Amino acid sequence: MTIKFTVKKTTEKTDNSARLGMLKTEHSTIETPVFMPVGTQGTVKGMLPKEINDLGFSIILCNAYHLFLRPGHKLIAKAGGLHRFMGWNKSILTDSGGFQVFSLGKINKITDEGVTFQSYIDGSKHFIGPEKSMEIQMALGSDIAMVFDQCAPYPSTRYETSFAAERTFQWAKQCQSFHSSKNQTLFGIIQGGLFPEIRKENALKIVDLDFSGYALGGLSVGEPKPMMYQMLDVTVPLLPKEKPRYLMGVGEPHSVLEGVARGIDMFDCVLPTRNGRNGCLFTSHGKISITNSRYKNDLSPIDRDCQCYTCQNFSRAYLRHLYMANEMLAPILGTIHNLYFMNHLMKEIRNAIFENRFNSFKKNFFDNFS
Amino acid sequence: MTIKFTVKKTTEKTDNSARLGMLKTEHSTIETPVFMPVGTQGTVKGMLPKEINDLGFSIILCNAYHLFLRPGHKLIAKAGGLHRFMGWNKSILTDSGGFQVFSLGKINKITDEGVTFQSYIDGSKHFIGPEKSMEIQMALGSDIAMVFDQCAPYPSTRYETSFAAERTFQWAKQCQSFHSSKNQTLFGIIQGGLFPEIRKENALKIVDLDFSGYALGGLSVGEPKPMMYQMLDVTVPLLPKEKPRYLMGVGEPHSVLEGVARGIDMFDCVLPTRNGRNGCLFTSHGKISITNSRYKNDLSPIDRDCQCYTCQNFSRAYLRHLYMANEMLAPILGTIHNLYFMNHLMKEIRNAIFENRFNSFKKNFFDNFS
Repeated sequence: MTIKFTVKKTTEKTDNSARLGMLKTEHSTIETPVFMPVGTQGTVKGMLPKEINDLGFSIILCNAYHLFLRPGHKLIAKAGGLHRFMGWNKSILTDSGGFQVFSLGKINKITDEGVTFQSYIDGSKHFIGPEKSMEIQMALGSDIAMVFDQCAPYPSTRYETSFAAERTFQWAKQCQSFHSSKNQTLFGIIQGGLFPEIRKENALKIVDLDFSGYALGGLSVGEPKPMMYQMLDVTVPLLPKEKPRYLMGVGEPHSVLEGVARGIDMFDCVLPTRNGRNGCLFTSHGKISITNSRYKNDLSPIDRDCQCYTCQNFSRAYLRHLYMANEMLAPILGTIHNLYFMNHLMKEIRNAIFENRFNSFKKNFFDNFS
Repeated sequence: MTIKFTVKKTTEKTDNSARLGMLKTEHSTIETPVFMPVGTQGTVKGMLPKEINDLGFSIILCNAYHLFLRPGHKLIAKAGGLHRFMGWNKSILTDSGGFQVFSLGKINKITDEGVTFQSYIDGSKHFIGPEKSMEIQMALGSDIAMVFDQCAPYPSTRYETSFAAERTFQWAKQCQSFHSSKNQTLFGIIQGGLFPEIRKENALKIVDLDFSGYALGGLSVGEPKPMMYQMLDVTVPLLPKEKPRYLMGVGEPHSVLEGVARGIDMFDCVLPTRNGRNGCLFTSHGKISITNSRYKNDLSPIDRDCQCYTCQNFSRAYLRHLYMANEMLAPILGTIHNLYFMNHLMKEIRNAIFENRFNSFKKNFFDNFS
């Protein structure tokens, strides 16, 4: 085990309630609940690594799938690993490529060995299975690797979902046997779509394999949010208390709070960065679309209460000007603001848990953030 | 006069030889010869103001023409001026709009009063003349404003060139009479195309108006470089020693050195930033195109001798990956590198002048930089 996870505090004596934790890797110490910015291709879009660090993040997510296709994991290994290649010296979690293979590329063939697919870049043919995914992620040298899983699309039938969950279990076993890095730890992924019984069964089997952390995959893929929360309700209690729990692909503020309330420790999502690039900016009162003409002459900051570099230095009118003029600084400043917002939200969540007032914090946030 | 310019050292006892100077405005102290990054629309593309500052720049150029059209100089005045609007607290020089009106928009009518033209953004009709240009630049509150001039295109006949130069003189007088800001100083612009006699006559007349600085306009517009240098040779000796001299739109390293050799103090150009965005990167051995496949596996920095953030943290292979993947970080890191290169070059030039070895420095630079 190359990570150390300690639960510092729980809010109630249940297995799925908000909790504070500390996750240590060889590259950083991470306070949980944590939001991980997404750096798909080895860069959080538009951000210098030092900016991500200055914003207070100590772990980011990168995608094995994208880096395998371009520039290639072998080059990155030759460069001394992904940390050095991308100039980021804190922690990295890599997604396995499972989700991307099923959602991005044109699939040629799926077998028990893995998936043959066409590159989204140039249509070239590639294969990734459990062994290959481990090879890629070990070459990247991320702190946390994820098992190669099969994510059934939404909606899927019970049969399809069950089949994908069983294959995810088989692949998880194979990933474990192929994984041999001493500097990297491996998390399991629980599938099961929106079927409580399949989720539960898959959770029990994956937990039985004894990973150092557990992720919930295949959620936030289009289903109504209450269904996602229901899946957390049935799955989280089956996960060992002493291991970190990661809800993949979730980063919308409401969902993060609902996830934390159900005992989730880790989140990642492209939403804050993508929204930032598009001018959809988070404030304590909800999202605003900065390109709206109502902000044309608005000389106030995005959010008066925000301490980020963007809000401390620029007005809504200036930001709107940058977006309208298609200036690169627009998505940069928008990303800085939204990432600051997310990190600040996670800090407030942790403070609220620490001070035994998470439920009132959550209610208050929902009342204000529309 | 709201600026103070002091010549600290000249290399020879001629009026057009390399010299060291110090330009003080209300916002910063600028060592000359200086290169000014271009922030056309109120942002140096892709750079946070604090990055421009960290790179060592203490003056940038912005364009009255663009800011007049979008977001409008009145909004910027309401925001407290351009410095505050764009979050840049060092010096700003604004171009008058003369060059842009003649080169960017569709012109409807030119009269002695000014130019009616169509916006490059939406085709809407606008008018800028000497009075309007002064109104715009005073509203922006730049430290240095430029007179509204008429730049004859290249090539132009003797008659056309002479006509544009004379109109530039008439407009310069009008600009002076309309300019009434105590916090801003006004520079004259000398036109005259590639005709030595017209340049000389225009220089004498413009100098006679007694501006606090003098710019050479209408050069680097497509003419062979020796012709540009010849224009400097005939014009610079006619300019008062004690005033700053500014060669507009020039920033290619060779031309900067030739300009400095002829007594120029100030330069601006989009080239370093535009090249940076396109992956054309300056090194001490010349330019490289980082997207070239030869750099695919090149784990060395852009320039081993460069101390910039990009070279200190990233390899050519990583940069090439970012450009190929169309990642925003590519133009950001390329811009940081090229701007660092330019600022460093200007520092080296100033050191060489200070140590009486400018000519050998120049020769050595030309021998290496291809």
